[in-house]
Amino acid sequence: MSDLNVYEILQKKRDGKSLTKDEIHFMIGGYTTGSIPDYQMSAFLMATYMSEMNKKETAYLTEAMLYSGDTLSIAPKGVVDKHSTGGVGDKTSFIIAPIAAAAGVSVPMISGRSLGHTGGTLDKLDAIKGISTSINSESFIRQIKEVGCVFGGQTKKIAPADKKIYALRDVTATIESIPLITASIMSKKLAEGINGLVLDIKTGNGAFMSKKSQALQLAESLKSTALNFDKNGYIFLTDMSQPLGNAVGHSIEIIECVEVLKGRGPKDLVEISLDLSAAMIHLAGQAKSFKQARELAQELITSGAALSKFKETVEYQGGNSSFLKNYKLLPTAQKKLNIKASKSGFIASMNNKKIGLACIEIGGGRRIKTDKINLGAGFYFHKKIGDKVAKGDNLVTVHYDSKYKNVLPKLKILFKDELIDIESSVKKIKQQPLIIKKSSFWSKK
Amino acid sequence: MSDLNVYEILQKKRDGKSLTKDEIHFMIGGYTTGSIPDYQMSAFLMATYMSEMNKKETAYLTEAMLYSGDTLSIAPKGVVDKHSTGGVGDKTSFIIAPIAAAAGVSVPMISGRSLGHTGGTLDKLDAIKGISTSINSESFIRQIKEVGCVFGGQTKKIAPADKKIYALRDVTATIESIPLITASIMSKKLAEGINGLVLDIKTGNGAFMSKKSQALQLAESLKSTALNFDKNGYIFLTDMSQPLGNAVGHSIEIIECVEVLKGRGPKDLVEISLDLSAAMIHLAGQAKSFKQARELAQELITSGAALSKFKETVEYQGGNSSFLKNYKLLPTAQKKLNIKASKSGFIASMNNKKIGLACIEIGGGRRIKTDKINLGAGFYFHKKIGDKVAKGDNLVTVHYDSKYKNVLPKLKILFKDELIDIESSVKKIKQQPLIIKKSSFWSKK
Repeated sequence: MSDLNVYEILQKKRDGKSLTKDEIHFMIGGYTTGSIPDYQMSAFLMATYMSEMNKKETAYLTEAMLYSGDTLSIAPKGVVDKHSTGGVGDKTSFIIAPIAAAAGVSVPMISGRSLGHTGGTLDKLDAIKGISTSINSESFIRQIKEVGCVFGGQTKKIAPADKKIYALRDVTATIESIPLITASIMSKKLAEGINGLVLDIKTGNGAFMSKKSQALQLAESLKSTALNFDKNGYIFLTDMSQPLGNAVGHSIEIIECVEVLKGRGPKDLVEISLDLSAAMIHLAGQAKSFKQARELAQELITSGAALSKFKETVEYQGGNSSFLKNYKLLPTAQKKLNIKASKSGFIASMNNKKIGLACIEIGGGRRIKTDKINLGAGFYFHKKIGDKVAKGDNLVTVHYDSKYKNVLPKLKILFKDELIDIESSVKKIKQQPLIIKKSSFWSKK
Repeated sequence: MSDLNVYEILQKKRDGKSLTKDEIHFMIGGYTTGSIPDYQMSAFLMATYMSEMNKKETAYLTEAMLYSGDTLSIAPKGVVDKHSTGGVGDKTSFIIAPIAAAAGVSVPMISGRSLGHTGGTLDKLDAIKGISTSINSESFIRQIKEVGCVFGGQTKKIAPADKKIYALRDVTATIESIPLITASIMSKKLAEGINGLVLDIKTGNGAFMSKKSQALQLAESLKSTALNFDKNGYIFLTDMSQPLGNAVGHSIEIIECVEVLKGRGPKDLVEISLDLSAAMIHLAGQAKSFKQARELAQELITSGAALSKFKETVEYQGGNSSFLKNYKLLPTAQKKLNIKASKSGFIASMNNKKIGLACIEIGGGRRIKTDKINLGAGFYFHKKIGDKVAKGDNLVTVHYDSKYKNVLPKLKILFKDELIDIESSVKKIKQQPLIIKKSSFWSKK
């Protein structure tokens, strides 16, 4: 390895050539230990963004980032996690992890915080009093063995290269790169010691990859990398052109999840949650087919077993579970404002990304990493795409604290002019299905 | 300007879009003052390398770098400089600056140091005892007014953005970029306060841009940028597939230049020097045509006026000019070794880049910026491409110090196997002309 040098590696990638395993490990290893400085890594990231990487290089990159830190070893089989590329109102983790765990799956769920228009799983958990998500490796493994699932944050020991590289991508316009996204997702998930992975790739204007073609490319890259590491998986391509469920925020999303676990949630969120948890159950071998797994998932909701598992998980992590019976124990916004339809018709479309960004205006998200989130704030949508509305109907309830009241006039105009589009000329809107595509892949090993 | 942000500028360049004047000034200004960190600038440089820049962007980049520091104001007309893209044995500056100055041209020559296989003008001057090349702006202007020419180094005040950016390009594989090279060259030359510029663009295996197509592209970009700033110019595309002249080194190149000024130099070096100085004289308006200017240049050598001007310049900068009569007063290598032809035939080709690199092995160049140069070391070539040789003829004399003697066996093999190719099968070698192309451009203003 001694004859490798950064300059020549940069030249190769810049000129569109493929890098070897040694070259990629040299770059990632050097950057993690600090022998390669930020300014060379950012040139490498830009060259990678622009020249892309082939499947082999992407697997080497994933491997180098995976082995930059510790890897967990939970069980030889039955360990399955889900990864979503994120979106507005995406809250399925809180529902599917307890369902799958109740079915006997080991679910080592490591999540992140929000930035930009999409929410973060860890931030939503902050709404639950007392819950801890900073869990070391030993406690993490013990909890999975005893409870079946865990909601944790990325520790310094898991894929430290990813953490360092992600921070640099975030300031050098190199985020939206298929190989870099693939390696970032897969290195962390592989470090969790999974046997199978359910991928929820979002598309539509509220998704990270808004174009379907990009989302499919990412799905293909993730699948290829997973197979390279002999992992099985399910890939769901799902719609993010409107918020998932009715709630967008922190406390109000937690409430909506509990409602689903109580058998009462909104239809779209229930459907996607059953599908995703069924995929996890099938991958873990706790059911013989996807269909059987889905029936099992439904049963676990109906019987209350999934809700019990959620309660058990919250309590194991030090959280106060009383809110399950009394939602007022969660952080609550001081005030509510109903935004009403200005005309009759059908909801034709929503600007989902801008909805996510609008939520930041009332404290329900972060502009920069150090912003403090207002956990009670959020939007509750009474209407979704395709719904019929009459002039004066409630479209959205804004949950807000008084200190944000100066934002309300702007919000009202935004919702009327940009965020929700009501078509009065047509009778029925053609809707994108929520689950656009579902497929699975199985390693030959 | 307050709504500009680095991330969006990086995105634009990454996606192949053109940047505005404000965006380019924002990046360069921010980097020069330190508000934009290295890691964002290196991503910008890589994106620029890969997406390139159009003529307008290149002019904006040049302008931003030019105005990052001081600009000299020497005279409203008659100020002309030369820039060469560099090569092995390229030493014309020492010849043409005094010729042009003797013809009444103001020549504000700011030069650099060597790195890699090409030599540096400032390093060669170090061979002259007592000479100072660190000259502040006031002294610089005074010297041009009193003497007509000056040999100076780039001060911190001239185009500081270029200095900072060049150092970053050097470690991020973003050197060989037409817009970045153009802005680097032109910002410094324009800061000198020139009215006209002679460009010596080298091509062939000893040049920075070895391919002719790249060299032509660079020439076109430099011309367009010069015209953008209303400057006149001459462009020479010249051959660098063998060393220029016979000497490669520091003291021995200075000696060869003095020989040319004494009317006795090698033919190729004499020809190119007359052409380049004629272009300078013509641009400065000291002759009505190139032909007249060339005759004047020849006269100034024959009369000794050019040599006197060189002597005057050296002495003005504190140098001891006695070496002009006694070359032994320059640093001299302890030993000499003749490398002989191993067969008869014609010199078919040379590996000029490797000749430059081989010179580093005996201390005649730098591997890294802090390397100390052995000023007496070098190669003297007795034969050039096309010359007939008999087995046993001297090909090259190596000037070296005893401490490098362990390098000699390797050098002998190198010269025989790689650096000089003797063809015995053909009778005559087809030679590339030294001046491949000559053209001039004139601003309409």
